[in-house]
Amino acid sequence: MLPYKTLIQIDRNSSVNIYIQVCNNFVSLITNGTLQPSDVLPSSRVLADLIGINRNTVKLAYEELISQGWAESVERKGVFVLSKLPVISKAKIPEPNKSHNQQESFIWTNHFSNSIPSTNFQKTGLRIDDGFPDVRLAPVDQLMREYRSLSRKFYGKNFLKYGSSKGSEHLRISISNYLSNTRGLVASPDNILISKGSQMGIYLTAQLLLTIGDTVAVGVSNYGYADDTFKHSGAKLIRIPVDENGMDIDYLENILRKQIIKALYIIPHHHFPTTVTLSMERRLKLLNLAREYRFAIIEDDYDFDFHYENKPYLPLASIDHNHNVIYIGSISKTFAPALRIGFMSGPPAFINAAASLRELIDKQGDTLLEDAFSVLFNNGEMERHFRKSLKIYKHRRNLFCDILETDFKNDIEFEIPEGGLAVWGTFDKKTDLIKMSQNALKNGLHIDNGLFYKNESFDKNAMRIGFASIDENEIIKAFEILKKSL
Amino acid sequence: MLPYKTLIQIDRNSSVNIYIQVCNNFVSLITNGTLQPSDVLPSSRVLADLIGINRNTVKLAYEELISQGWAESVERKGVFVLSKLPVISKAKIPEPNKSHNQQESFIWTNHFSNSIPSTNFQKTGLRIDDGFPDVRLAPVDQLMREYRSLSRKFYGKNFLKYGSSKGSEHLRISISNYLSNTRGLVASPDNILISKGSQMGIYLTAQLLLTIGDTVAVGVSNYGYADDTFKHSGAKLIRIPVDENGMDIDYLENILRKQIIKALYIIPHHHFPTTVTLSMERRLKLLNLAREYRFAIIEDDYDFDFHYENKPYLPLASIDHNHNVIYIGSISKTFAPALRIGFMSGPPAFINAAASLRELIDKQGDTLLEDAFSVLFNNGEMERHFRKSLKIYKHRRNLFCDILETDFKNDIEFEIPEGGLAVWGTFDKKTDLIKMSQNALKNGLHIDNGLFYKNESFDKNAMRIGFASIDENEIIKAFEILKKSL
Repeated sequence: MLPYKTLIQIDRNSSVNIYIQVCNNFVSLITNGTLQPSDVLPSSRVLADLIGINRNTVKLAYEELISQGWAESVERKGVFVLSKLPVISKAKIPEPNKSHNQQESFIWTNHFSNSIPSTNFQKTGLRIDDGFPDVRLAPVDQLMREYRSLSRKFYGKNFLKYGSSKGSEHLRISISNYLSNTRGLVASPDNILISKGSQMGIYLTAQLLLTIGDTVAVGVSNYGYADDTFKHSGAKLIRIPVDENGMDIDYLENILRKQIIKALYIIPHHHFPTTVTLSMERRLKLLNLAREYRFAIIEDDYDFDFHYENKPYLPLASIDHNHNVIYIGSISKTFAPALRIGFMSGPPAFINAAASLRELIDKQGDTLLEDAFSVLFNNGEMERHFRKSLKIYKHRRNLFCDILETDFKNDIEFEIPEGGLAVWGTFDKKTDLIKMSQNALKNGLHIDNGLFYKNESFDKNAMRIGFASIDENEIIKAFEILKKSL
Repeated sequence: MLPYKTLIQIDRNSSVNIYIQVCNNFVSLITNGTLQPSDVLPSSRVLADLIGINRNTVKLAYEELISQGWAESVERKGVFVLSKLPVISKAKIPEPNKSHNQQESFIWTNHFSNSIPSTNFQKTGLRIDDGFPDVRLAPVDQLMREYRSLSRKFYGKNFLKYGSSKGSEHLRISISNYLSNTRGLVASPDNILISKGSQMGIYLTAQLLLTIGDTVAVGVSNYGYADDTFKHSGAKLIRIPVDENGMDIDYLENILRKQIIKALYIIPHHHFPTTVTLSMERRLKLLNLAREYRFAIIEDDYDFDFHYENKPYLPLASIDHNHNVIYIGSISKTFAPALRIGFMSGPPAFINAAASLRELIDKQGDTLLEDAFSVLFNNGEMERHFRKSLKIYKHRRNLFCDILETDFKNDIEFEIPEGGLAVWGTFDKKTDLIKMSQNALKNGLHIDNGLFYKNESFDKNAMRIGFASIDENEIIKAFEILKKSL
């Protein structure tokens, strides 16, 4: 007889009836080949003794097995595994922590893997990041208060049912007002889709604009996730040089005379990664080119709210009168990356198509969270948060750049960024960034190694060094470690 | 002179400095063509009087305009719009509520639109739905308590930073235990990706398994969003008949002998929409076919937790030993649809690819919400919720079916469903479901019209009628209205 005492595992705290658990255990033994067709099962009395349960429970389990078509009862002989079961191959059940041995046997072609080296930002410790906000500043308590209060407010909890894939109507109205007040962008709530961070805006836009063989223009240096997203849509990238005034629009014009470009992706405020701002002259020229050559401009403006020099250039979307701009923004980036809220704004037909596609991806966002953010926009909490953060970040930027200027004069070249949350630092040729990153980690500082910014046409010994997510003491300490690690 | 008093709009409550607002207003006037190159701007004194602000503020605004490259100052003559501005076409700024007139001028090919008729479930009122949970039963307060407590617990709020695109590690561990305890599914946290509802699981799986020209097998009747998701991946659908024992696996076998099928999508428990359950014999045969023909089985088991007859057949994933099953489940469906949490489990290489792709879609989920759900799983709250709901839903199902049996004998044919949250009702030929739906609405009852279930090969005068989201009084009232509306 098989060692049923160890083979049959009962969990008395489970909500599943014990006889069902016994039945399920037998099904596993049958399907994994431990029990073969026509094998006899132990008598109910024997099994009950072995595993310490009531005999009637075993009987119920056997009845269940029989009714599910796994076993048959032969009078006066006992219960047997069905003889005419389909042939089942013998295989071991993998143990929970040995899952890496599970090799799928189906054939699939899209062994997708993006090109971005992964970093675990959840690891604790001192970190110079890529330009993240300081989540300690976010008014999480206020958000939670609204979240909780909303959940109690409505009898029937309609907002917990399915909603629109464009997002909460309340938040769309709030964002519409916010865009108009802060950047002169006229967008009605119908023009707005609430996404999961700006990444979803890029993804939806890419899926709608680009198909296999299309060309999309991006910076020579660019946000790697955007590059990967466009490639995933089947598009080819054409890279446009970026100088201290942003993307070289004359260069783009020469390209446009020769070939069709379906879309251009640009971060006019604080180009990623080099933080340069697109000049107003180039903005106007770009808009004219878009009109003439009928391509879409994907304007990623996730960083708009962080300006230190009181020069908030209007977004392209605010001065475009031909509806060629898809405008993408983020609340995650200004609040907390793990709370995934962003938005996109564009011509209504395009936003409707994006909403339709979004239904296939995740149906809709988290209405409760969206409504809670709407309250924070409407009661001024978000604006207070922006003002407060801006002041703190400006202070940190200044300290950060002072130290860079004083202590790293020969190691790191940089320009003071007008906005955004990071400095683009070009390191001395002799500095091996990978080694530097490893050394720093040994000394207790997480800092990336610059690989994230490289692509097939961009290979500088440089990286973004974020100043916003660490306070002044942390900045001083981080730089002490960095100095030792160079 | 232009009517600056109305053209220049100042918002004194905005966080944007007034001089920046004035500057931005002028930029709009220049870019929309109201002000032309070389036009003179009003003197600072005149404008200050007109719009009621300090003269120095106007001066600052003009300086800003000049420094941004929009205007130039000519000594003793005043400030002029730059003469060498690129030509800008004149266009009206659309008013906020007239956005439907905004026609994009870029060319895009994927004018995506899914085939699903949209329903606004946020509308209040009595509703017989498609089989949704009663969100009034969800322990939202407990969830909020955990949500809030987690947000206060950790200094530094690491969980608010970027995390893994596989989802919160805590929730992956909880789901791993839950799958093992409730359905004998052995999946380590590495095998699990926390998605946004089951829809994201279907989307990711489709994107990885299917490419243009591939074939996917689905039921003759099927969940429309799944059909659309597969088509969006470029796949062709092949439809397999479904009878009272679920999908016809012999029919599938005949197809497999003739052509390559990359994947099969199935809802073995409570097939959508007809609620039939796949027999155990067919389950085993299907698994053998998957092994032999090396196709993937996409097992959508969003409904597993709702069984009334104590016959929880094990999922295909629990009895598959060849790693051919991608298992997709939902917490949204058992808790509240607007809280988007689901999971998928599969071979590690596949889950890693899905996580990689997911980074391009929305980077990651809401870590805070995921961690809060993890606490509810670990402290038994979810299990209490399942047990409680199950008992209530069973009661509602019985009442619902009793009334159908008694009062609608000649109007609606149905089988009592063993599980799930809806009855599949076939209406009398003479009943026009569209008219019925319209009549019901006039009498105060929202009920769909059956179009959602139709496809090119399935056209029954039938629809799902959900019994779970309304209580007993509501059921009685809804049926009174329905009777009048037939």
